[in-house]
Amino acid sequence: MAYSGEPILAADLLFRPTHSLIDQSLHSRMGATTTNGDGFGIGWYGEGSTPAVFKSVEPAWNDENLHEIAGQIRTPLLFAHVRAATGTPVQRSNSHPFRHEDWLWMHNGSLRGFHDIKRELMMAVDPSLYGDVRGSTDSETLFFLALTFGLHDDPFGAVERAVGFVEAVGRAHGIEHPVQMTVATTDGESTWVFRYSSEQASRTLFYSTEISALRRLHPEVEVLHRLGDETRLVVSEPLRDLEGAWTEMPEASAAVVRAGHDDIRPFHPAVPA
Amino acid sequence: MAYSGEPILAADLLFRPTHSLIDQSLHSRMGATTTNGDGFGIGWYGEGSTPAVFKSVEPAWNDENLHEIAGQIRTPLLFAHVRAATGTPVQRSNSHPFRHEDWLWMHNGSLRGFHDIKRELMMAVDPSLYGDVRGSTDSETLFFLALTFGLHDDPFGAVERAVGFVEAVGRAHGIEHPVQMTVATTDGESTWVFRYSSEQASRTLFYSTEISALRRLHPEVEVLHRLGDETRLVVSEPLRDLEGAWTEMPEASAAVVRAGHDDIRPFHPAVPA
Amino acid sequence: MAYSGEPILAADLLFRPTHSLIDQSLHSRMGATTTNGDGFGIGWYGEGSTPAVFKSVEPAWNDENLHEIAGQIRTPLLFAHVRAATGTPVQRSNSHPFRHEDWLWMHNGSLRGFHDIKRELMMAVDPSLYGDVRGSTDSETLFFLALTFGLHDDPFGAVERAVGFVEAVGRAHGIEHPVQMTVATTDGESTWVFRYSSEQASRTLFYSTEISALRRLHPEVEVLHRLGDETRLVVSEPLRDLEGAWTEMPEASAAVVRAGHDDIRPFHPAVPA
Amino acid sequence: MAYSGEPILAADLLFRPTHSLIDQSLHSRMGATTTNGDGFGIGWYGEGSTPAVFKSVEPAWNDENLHEIAGQIRTPLLFAHVRAATGTPVQRSNSHPFRHEDWLWMHNGSLRGFHDIKRELMMAVDPSLYGDVRGSTDSETLFFLALTFGLHDDPFGAVERAVGFVEAVGRAHGIEHPVQMTVATTDGESTWVFRYSSEQASRTLFYSTEISALRRLHPEVEVLHRLGDETRLVVSEPLRDLEGAWTEMPEASAAVVRAGHDDIRPFHPAVPA
Repeated sequence: MAYSGEPILAADLLFRPTHSLIDQSLHSRMGATTTNGDGFGIGWYGEGSTPAVFKSVEPAWNDENLHEIAGQIRTPLLFAHVRAATGTPVQRSNSHPFRHEDWLWMHNGSLRGFHDIKRELMMAVDPSLYGDVRGSTDSETLFFLALTFGLHDDPFGAVERAVGFVEAVGRAHGIEHPVQMTVATTDGESTWVFRYSSEQASRTLFYSTEISALRRLHPEVEVLHRLGDETRLVVSEPLRDLEGAWTEMPEASAAVVRAGHDDIRPFHPAVPA
Repeated sequence: MAYSGEPILAADLLFRPTHSLIDQSLHSRMGATTTNGDGFGIGWYGEGSTPAVFKSVEPAWNDENLHEIAGQIRTPLLFAHVRAATGTPVQRSNSHPFRHEDWLWMHNGSLRGFHDIKRELMMAVDPSLYGDVRGSTDSETLFFLALTFGLHDDPFGAVERAVGFVEAVGRAHGIEHPVQMTVATTDGESTWVFRYSSEQASRTLFYSTEISALRRLHPEVEVLHRLGDETRLVVSEPLRDLEGAWTEMPEASAAVVRAGHDDIRPFHPAVPA
Repeated sequence: MAYSGEPILAADLLFRPTHSLIDQSLHSRMGATTTNGDGFGIGWYGEGSTPAVFKSVEPAWNDENLHEIAGQIRTPLLFAHVRAATGTPVQRSNSHPFRHEDWLWMHNGSLRGFHDIKRELMMAVDPSLYGDVRGSTDSETLFFLALTFGLHDDPFGAVERAVGFVEAVGRAHGIEHPVQMTVATTDGESTWVFRYSSEQASRTLFYSTEISALRRLHPEVEVLHRLGDETRLVVSEPLRDLEGAWTEMPEASAAVVRAGHDDIRPFHPAVPA
Repeated sequence: MAYSGEPILAADLLFRPTHSLIDQSLHSRMGATTTNGDGFGIGWYGEGSTPAVFKSVEPAWNDENLHEIAGQIRTPLLFAHVRAATGTPVQRSNSHPFRHEDWLWMHNGSLRGFHDIKRELMMAVDPSLYGDVRGSTDSETLFFLALTFGLHDDPFGAVERAVGFVEAVGRAHGIEHPVQMTVATTDGESTWVFRYSSEQASRTLFYSTEISALRRLHPEVEVLHRLGDETRLVVSEPLRDLEGAWTEMPEASAAVVRAGHDDIRPFHPAVPA
């Protein structure tokens, strides 16, 4: 989940089920009944320009420290993720969100056959960045490929090049559908989101309707009056059965979320030069 | 799950899905898709008379150390438990099985209103035992009440007196149905199992059919040929859809599992003198 | 360590060695070279009146999440503790600071023979509080005795009665010197500190000199210019070899630290009525 | 510490201070008073040919599960290690011993400037092995270089080539003394140990005197009578002040430890072809 907007208490987003935009199913997502509680992480911007990350291998619902700090963090931009491990160890350094300088990155999905193509992918990571890779996941590798291909300057293009590269390497190794992904990444100001898979059947991704429109639709939902007009939520699945609240991102699309103006566009992987 | 019989590799019981008595659903029980992965523990007898316990707050499927040692433990008696926390902290000292001297104890269920009656229950624990309570759960308290009421000498009677006491205290505090339980406890030689609830709608408990009968029924299941005739498994839910393999313990009943001869009898809580 | 004063970034207190009031020896206290890294905890006041606690069983220096959140917490009142376990399990619920409603409590030392007198001490805890005890330490029990004997209304008297009670019970059990302690406790406004032991040879406790005086003494120490005049630090050992910075609490004494005015007085255990 | 010889209970090696070959200082090594308790691990051979590893980020003295299983593991070959982290995360996958198929590997020391040369070192790891690297340490990288350069067939030569390669790459990056190490590695039958550093001032390494000779020297030390004649211990520092018990490995030397016959020889790094 990616939140941006007025500063909000993290606990209100993560753990306040009743009369909130995020209902009981978030508890599921956060680990109580989740299919795979293989780690949890939140990243947020506050003091300084570099985001903080609180990551854990505990199911989120059991992490007392997470509950404690969520009640103390007030932030305008929060990423929250529950990991479904796909072969690499469950450890804090393999939990999302990943961070590099002022950027955060979350990825749901996988790079198929990663064990066999990891070396080739890692060799394409810029030498100056290689030593900063702290974990061993496909998700973090994809992040560092995006950084290598220009995430700082051209996020849409950088991710298109990263995905194009992984698909090329994967297919050279006989992997038919190398990439399955939804991705959210941010520099603390804007958030870019992506939905794509090689097999053209991607995991879902939804973004929230404008809060002012939602308030008119559902005047009885209390939290909507506490959220500012610039509130944007991007989630894997609609987190609350509130009619009109969520719009699905199209297959093979990307968007940027920033104050005032959003932008959805097609996503086309490109093999980097 | 409680296993007794020929020495068996713990990994064969816990993690060997195919051609095994315990199939994919055990993976669920062990944490991958479990509703509440609030800790896991195994206890077993090997060197010396005192059992060892390996307990953790991680979901079992993610606990690499558990996988490692399960491949090295060969034991004739193993207890395995996944905890569903009911209000007390998730920490190793609150994971089952609990141990006192040579005894192990596991409990599925809860003592309702425990927060309000805990003090009265703990005051009834024998003073010589009080300091040995290491955690804060209702399950461990019930264990220490059973120890207080004579578990070493008369397991059936001790548990009947412990449950009777909890029900009396609970009802005095306005709790209509104080006790919900299935319990397994062992001294390393025999295992006693109990199924009871104040509301007469207890969680399920099953025991395995004799292995020789099972072998005749299912000659194709490989593991049955590796298990000895004295194999006994007691489980919360049938772990494999193998016809004839599991018999349900009746409501309000108890049994002792020991080499050669089993014994099922009714369970009647009794307020201790 | 107990800090009160102007809001300060927790990381500046815990982890900024150079040009700071807390130098490399704090790193020791925080776990890198500590004699017993049996858990670490911080408690602080921020959003709402109830303090948050971040507690862990990891050595503090290795706890990446602690580093992350310390860079994001700005607070006027912070407690930090490293635990030296004396027999009870190392688990989050046994780490300090302990919390009850708006109060925090830290204790260095031990109640000797605790295993044998625990039951009698716990039976003296007010029944309405009994269920709130989450761990199993002597330190938490002492806290709940202090709450029982009136910590909210008369902190000095409550702790004197709690200590007097423990000494009476201990001596009845043949324990010659039952209590060794330095204690810090706060309600978010004022902080009370205590130094006492039954054997009259207590662990050390120091408080900081007024910052304005320190600035005149040591104009070269940069951080002193960033700390407000109301800064108060109470520590177990002088954390920096800065002459004139620390004054030792006398044997058998107590003090209250609050904006504007401090107050040191003798400490006399009293057996409660 | 590397033990080989008669099957022994792991707890006797790790935790039995009195009348044992390993005295109180082992407790230090195991974490109670260690300078850097950044993880602990044991590896041992038992069921099957592949060793099991129990690794943790907890200080060893606090790891209750470690104590539990140590009382149940009886093995003829045990590796035990306490990690002093040098920049990479403290996580289970970064704890020693590392394992690959039937081999275990432990390393005390560091590869200096690792962050800057990691990429070049990892690119030299055989492509078929690259995906098996699970952590991010210099120690594990050195292991995989040794595997690449023929550890299975020629352990002495493989480690000489691995070290020679690291030194060549390091010096090309302006690192004057790239390698500081003592290493122990085993295939379950023989154990190879190495002591070397680029600066010719290596960390210490000691091996135990023949048990029969020790028994004659110290008839009063009880455990010596329980250890078989083939007992070999290799340790970083003499674990007990027992005269004549320990011999220091020379600077720049290597040895193989196997039943019946040991073999010490000079160690000369060689840049691989």
